Amino acid sequence: MTNYFSSNFKLGILGGGQLGKMMLYSTRKFDITTYVMDSSDEAPCKIACNKFVKGNLMNYDDVYNFGKQVDVLTFEIENVNVDALEALEKEGKKVFPSSKTLRTIQNKATQKLFYRDHQIPTSDFTRFAYVSEIEDAIDNGGLEFPFVWKAAQFGYDGNGVKVVRQLSDLNNLPKGECITEDLIPFKNELAVIVARNETGETKTYPVVEMEFHPEANQVEYVICPARIEETVAKKATDISLKVSKAFNHVGLLAVEMFQTENDDILVNEVAPRPHNSGHQTIEASYTSQFEQHIRAILNLPLGQTESKVGGIMVNLVGAEGYTGDVVYEHIEDILKMNGVTPHIYGKKQTRPFRKMGHVTIVNEDLNKAREIAEVVKNTIKVISK
Amino acid sequence: MTNYFSSNFKLGILGGGQLGKMMLYSTRKFDITTYVMDSSDEAPCKIACNKFVKGNLMNYDDVYNFGKQVDVLTFEIENVNVDALEALEKEGKKVFPSSKTLRTIQNKATQKLFYRDHQIPTSDFTRFAYVSEIEDAIDNGGLEFPFVWKAAQFGYDGNGVKVVRQLSDLNNLPKGECITEDLIPFKNELAVIVARNETGETKTYPVVEMEFHPEANQVEYVICPARIEETVAKKATDISLKVSKAFNHVGLLAVEMFQTENDDILVNEVAPRPHNSGHQTIEASYTSQFEQHIRAILNLPLGQTESKVGGIMVNLVGAEGYTGDVVYEHIEDILKMNGVTPHIYGKKQTRPFRKMGHVTIVNEDLNKAREIAEVVKNTIKVISK
Repeated sequence: MTNYFSSNFKLGILGGGQLGKMMLYSTRKFDITTYVMDSSDEAPCKIACNKFVKGNLMNYDDVYNFGKQVDVLTFEIENVNVDALEALEKEGKKVFPSSKTLRTIQNKATQKLFYRDHQIPTSDFTRFAYVSEIEDAIDNGGLEFPFVWKAAQFGYDGNGVKVVRQLSDLNNLPKGECITEDLIPFKNELAVIVARNETGETKTYPVVEMEFHPEANQVEYVICPARIEETVAKKATDISLKVSKAFNHVGLLAVEMFQTENDDILVNEVAPRPHNSGHQTIEASYTSQFEQHIRAILNLPLGQTESKVGGIMVNLVGAEGYTGDVVYEHIEDILKMNGVTPHIYGKKQTRPFRKMGHVTIVNEDLNKAREIAEVVKNTIKVISK
Repeated sequence: MTNYFSSNFKLGILGGGQLGKMMLYSTRKFDITTYVMDSSDEAPCKIACNKFVKGNLMNYDDVYNFGKQVDVLTFEIENVNVDALEALEKEGKKVFPSSKTLRTIQNKATQKLFYRDHQIPTSDFTRFAYVSEIEDAIDNGGLEFPFVWKAAQFGYDGNGVKVVRQLSDLNNLPKGECITEDLIPFKNELAVIVARNETGETKTYPVVEMEFHPEANQVEYVICPARIEETVAKKATDISLKVSKAFNHVGLLAVEMFQTENDDILVNEVAPRPHNSGHQTIEASYTSQFEQHIRAILNLPLGQTESKVGGIMVNLVGAEGYTGDVVYEHIEDILKMNGVTPHIYGKKQTRPFRKMGHVTIVNEDLNKAREIAEVVKNTIKVISK
């Protein structure tokens, strides 16, 4: 049995952003030696890891050489060189989630095909090698407005996704591989985080509800548990487990879904790592998603996923019109509020819509938490000097 | 209003042990630049602070020069050079808790005199300059067995305290300044942590109960909330507030008390910092004591001190008979248990009774938590290779 704690064991995290930073909360708590690689000197992970390596996550050699230094390798972002991960696995290095899982997920087209191949419900879609092919499809009647355009690779956090209602909406889109999806009217956007360790022990977190900001396509409130019927929650959980099983995944898998007008569940996309919808678990759950991810990839027993209290998360994104050294205006006012705690990721520069932190609001009464969350949202502002 | 978050503001912590380490959980969460000073290269705080300074906490120059580098200075251990703190205060530096508070508390004799002077109930005591004076007092009938001997300075964690039942128990005690206290039969050992910021906003945590290990004089279980009557809890809280007010303290003040057979409350001693009895707040409370200490010393609004769930803490101390590179035997077995999470401080070497970490057990049902805590205690063992 490997001794992970206060030992010579080394965990490696590819990516030094806020997800990695919050993983470090757990590695510090457990005194697990952790190396982190990121290309930025100002990466939030730079403090609190045992060794910080500067490197390009998409570069084969950088990723390969980093992986050689550690015993178990994981990542906090999908944009890493997956060929290097595969090479490391072939040499017997433990990489979780696997390169196979990442390769499927990294490309939205292969991801959708994966769902289709495994009978996982998802919206109808078409794959295109070039955006220009979309225009052809519209011309010959194979594609109708409105639809959702998604870049096949490198979309993140609202970028790389667009609702197309007329031809001009296609202007200025990246030209390459993409998919179009049916625009499904939905009641709710939901997410379930599934945790699974190497042994196969599996646990799911309660279903969460995500309220989205219409223009920026970013989440405004994450609400846990989702305010939906038990039957719908069960359906969402079952489908998430099916996705997890299909991937044979190790670590966390966040499954984003739509609840249609008919209460059907359709998988939107997945992320093989801790997820924005799970940040509230730090304060609301018996086991934070970050600790859970660490437990899972080290094949330690999984922790309890029940909630202690209701939890709501509000993202802190850079306000429009402000770029520069960040100032969290009125943060002291939200610190007065019961059950409210902000997380500041440590990015020194703000710009419009940049994810700078989040605020979690916990309360035994979820409705009260939602009220307080709205006040929080209308109080704190991420501006610049 | 000072911008503490992602700014040029610098917080300084004297002492790099586990209390400082857990304060860093909060400074990392808030992205508050934090410097730490400790004499050991292997201090738990070395990772996760922005700058680690090696220095002697009892050395005037080391403490003074460290304090000059930061905007607000605090400490996680009482054994620091208090003259240097006083000099820094005179120059306008913010030091919390104050040098005045620390000076009174650092010496157990002056601490007891402080309670007497402020009509704070505490056991009767006598102050001695030398242990030899104790023998004289016994000879002339001024002091009777049994009594409690306490070194006036530098006692920590069971050392510097001894129950004296016969003359030979005085052998091998440090010779210098000390106090003797009446040995009070008590029902329970309790603690209340009081938080107070510069503005005077004050909050108290729920009363906790401490079950002690008879020989080692270390806490075995910390139970929150204490299983005592409401009237006793209120008395303990009121007395704690009285102590806090008398000190005019800023930051956290942990007040340790005895509940006598008559349900009277006597103050045993205080610690002007986060305290072992408050570790369970990380998982059980709406606001961890560490975040609370940071809020208080920065004059931020205090967080809610209510509990989300019942919480019990078990200390992880080095097992007898083992010295060397630490191994946490059976830690994977406790990770299976619901609501259980270990904290590993990061000390590489274990020795008998050394505080190496703690395990928190949370549960909605405190009795269930207590059962699980006992299993935890009988399962995990801190040994060496």
